[in-house]
Amino acid sequence: MQPAGDHGFGTVEGGVTAPSGFRAGAVAAGIKKAGKLDVALLVAESAVPAAAVYTTNTIAAAPVVVSRAHTANGHIRAVVINSGNANACTGVSGRADARAMASAVGDAIGCAAEDVVVASTGVIGLPLPLGTVLGGISGAADLLASDGGPSAAEAIRTTDTFTKQCAISLTVGGITYLVGGMAKGSGMIQPNMATMLGFITTDAPLTPAACDSALRAATARTFNRITVDSDTSTNDMCLLMASGAAGGDPIDAGSERYDAIASAIHHVAGELARMIVRDGEGATKFVEVTVRGAASEHDAELAAFSIANSPLCKTAIFGADANWGRVAMAIGKSGAHIDPDAFDVVFAGIPTCLAGAAIAFDEQAAAEALGRPDVDVLVDLHVGDATATVWTCDLSYEYVRINGEYRS
Amino acid sequence: MQPAGDHGFGTVEGGVTAPSGFRAGAVAAGIKKAGKLDVALLVAESAVPAAAVYTTNTIAAAPVVVSRAHTANGHIRAVVINSGNANACTGVSGRADARAMASAVGDAIGCAAEDVVVASTGVIGLPLPLGTVLGGISGAADLLASDGGPSAAEAIRTTDTFTKQCAISLTVGGITYLVGGMAKGSGMIQPNMATMLGFITTDAPLTPAACDSALRAATARTFNRITVDSDTSTNDMCLLMASGAAGGDPIDAGSERYDAIASAIHHVAGELARMIVRDGEGATKFVEVTVRGAASEHDAELAAFSIANSPLCKTAIFGADANWGRVAMAIGKSGAHIDPDAFDVVFAGIPTCLAGAAIAFDEQAAAEALGRPDVDVLVDLHVGDATATVWTCDLSYEYVRINGEYRS
Repeated sequence: MQPAGDHGFGTVEGGVTAPSGFRAGAVAAGIKKAGKLDVALLVAESAVPAAAVYTTNTIAAAPVVVSRAHTANGHIRAVVINSGNANACTGVSGRADARAMASAVGDAIGCAAEDVVVASTGVIGLPLPLGTVLGGISGAADLLASDGGPSAAEAIRTTDTFTKQCAISLTVGGITYLVGGMAKGSGMIQPNMATMLGFITTDAPLTPAACDSALRAATARTFNRITVDSDTSTNDMCLLMASGAAGGDPIDAGSERYDAIASAIHHVAGELARMIVRDGEGATKFVEVTVRGAASEHDAELAAFSIANSPLCKTAIFGADANWGRVAMAIGKSGAHIDPDAFDVVFAGIPTCLAGAAIAFDEQAAAEALGRPDVDVLVDLHVGDATATVWTCDLSYEYVRINGEYRS
Repeated sequence: MQPAGDHGFGTVEGGVTAPSGFRAGAVAAGIKKAGKLDVALLVAESAVPAAAVYTTNTIAAAPVVVSRAHTANGHIRAVVINSGNANACTGVSGRADARAMASAVGDAIGCAAEDVVVASTGVIGLPLPLGTVLGGISGAADLLASDGGPSAAEAIRTTDTFTKQCAISLTVGGITYLVGGMAKGSGMIQPNMATMLGFITTDAPLTPAACDSALRAATARTFNRITVDSDTSTNDMCLLMASGAAGGDPIDAGSERYDAIASAIHHVAGELARMIVRDGEGATKFVEVTVRGAASEHDAELAAFSIANSPLCKTAIFGADANWGRVAMAIGKSGAHIDPDAFDVVFAGIPTCLAGAAIAFDEQAAAEALGRPDVDVLVDLHVGDATATVWTCDLSYEYVRINGEYRS
């Protein structure tokens, strides 16, 4: 699925602190209840090349507004993340709070506030408990360690049922590089130019431009190809930081080393993105939707997202009902160019529709295939050569329970 | 809510056969199980002025393809509707079946097949049981009666839990006109240029052009302003027939009589559209979403639909959770022009957000307001003068149950 190319990736432990040159720490500051970790710091040894993508939601949260300005110059020293409160729809005081978080990190580790990215996740529209958060920043700074990645991954969770992190190694041109990442997200997930929260680190000496290029290419086909519920958060961001600690000359786009490292970043982003969907709120099944034979990649993406976001398709998959007609409905409403007498549908591995018309299939076999935890939906539009794959989950009773009760 | 103007509408019984000049009949042909009515005929005395709008889903069902051709000349004699099978994704044989239905109606009542509209609703992708349907057409023709509207409204139901019909009278220029209508729909509802199935009759002597104008104006702000699940069916259509039986000169657009009758048609379409949402699959609440102060009506509609289709907003309303931050998220992702420091949110009558920032509110009062069967969501964007209202329902466990088990 991933364009791993010829670069064999090795799996390593440690998440965002697997690559050299990064330390992390997390504490339970008291924003979340019950002593759960809720403030995390991720820190490089100095301001390092970095790039970020942010939510396209026009009601961007305060930390997004502040961080967007801080990443504009292509260098970042540290990231602070709090969970339990999104600091969104909090007006002028919310932006002041986000800046105060950056300043507090700068004071604690010795850098300018402008070298700090701020990320928040949690309930929208509640004032940030700034004193609690600042206490957490101070505590997390005391705990910074080169094996702190897993605790940071733990601290950024909200409704996530498991932590989302991974790290891989690759060797190219005689040098071994590491790429690590962590993410959070489970609901309000149809990122657009970013994910809920994603943080990727590497010790490769990427330039700021190479960071930006690699991050945008990776997110376009990973974080921007997932959906849980079609909703786009006010707080989404994905950040890449490159410490350069692996050594060697700076790496810009267009070289063999760049291609290998960009591919590794794509791989880590894809793993994290799929973890978010596997942990989609109430998900009982992981669904991979591929549309091929489309007139353009944009059309393929439109049709695949239309299936992945259709409540009728998602509930049919939850109920193990091979009601592929809903897939036809979804591509037909998508806006993609369709020849109604040409498209094929293969539902959970079972051909159900050929050239736009129903074909007989074994309902028992289909029910069995749909009963498995991983379900593939494949549509061939037969009008072109473009393909897109989108990952999603089913829509269950549990989704309704989680989201009917979230704040209460 | 409706632009009723100065024309006091009186409520009358009889649905589509309330206006003079129409007869209807319905039978249980055996397409649906358990002896339920499943084939309906609605017939005028001769081919009368008519207009129709159809689904924008590019995978239009066979009856849509056939009927679109039949309504092109602005006159229709009869409509045949079957429930229990959508005759969609059925290829060439499906289109032949739809034409055979039109021919059978023509034979039974004495008209050309081209004067008959065909509508089907039910499961997508199953071959139409043509013999069963043709038997039903013959039976329904024998039962045609001027009080047959209610049985026709019964016969077009699928997952609908109640029949959807209404009729009103208005007097203008010394003549009393009647407008009646019936509709079906409960899931796969975000019509676009039409509804699931809607049929409106009047005895006013509207010209074909006046029919077209009145129908398009009415559907744009009624059937095209509702959503249950964001899904657009392959079979949607809405038809208006004008028998002229009330007498008087032909009525074209641009006259006082036209305005009054168009307003009545709008009223009937609005009543039917809101009935569909009240009967939304699994709905426990009727939700009216109004966005005002928008830069354009299109922007207002985008923002209102974004709220109405957001699974997170819909589940919050189901759970009586005043989580208005999800409303902010939804307008922010909608694509409408937003000033993040200007918008207000009033959730179930409770002001929760002013000028883009949270304000304190009484959670107990909000929970009580959200516990009622009708919930209003009001957003003022404060960037212009345009308004749009969209109607929807909440997203409940029952929606998941109905759609996880539908075909099984």
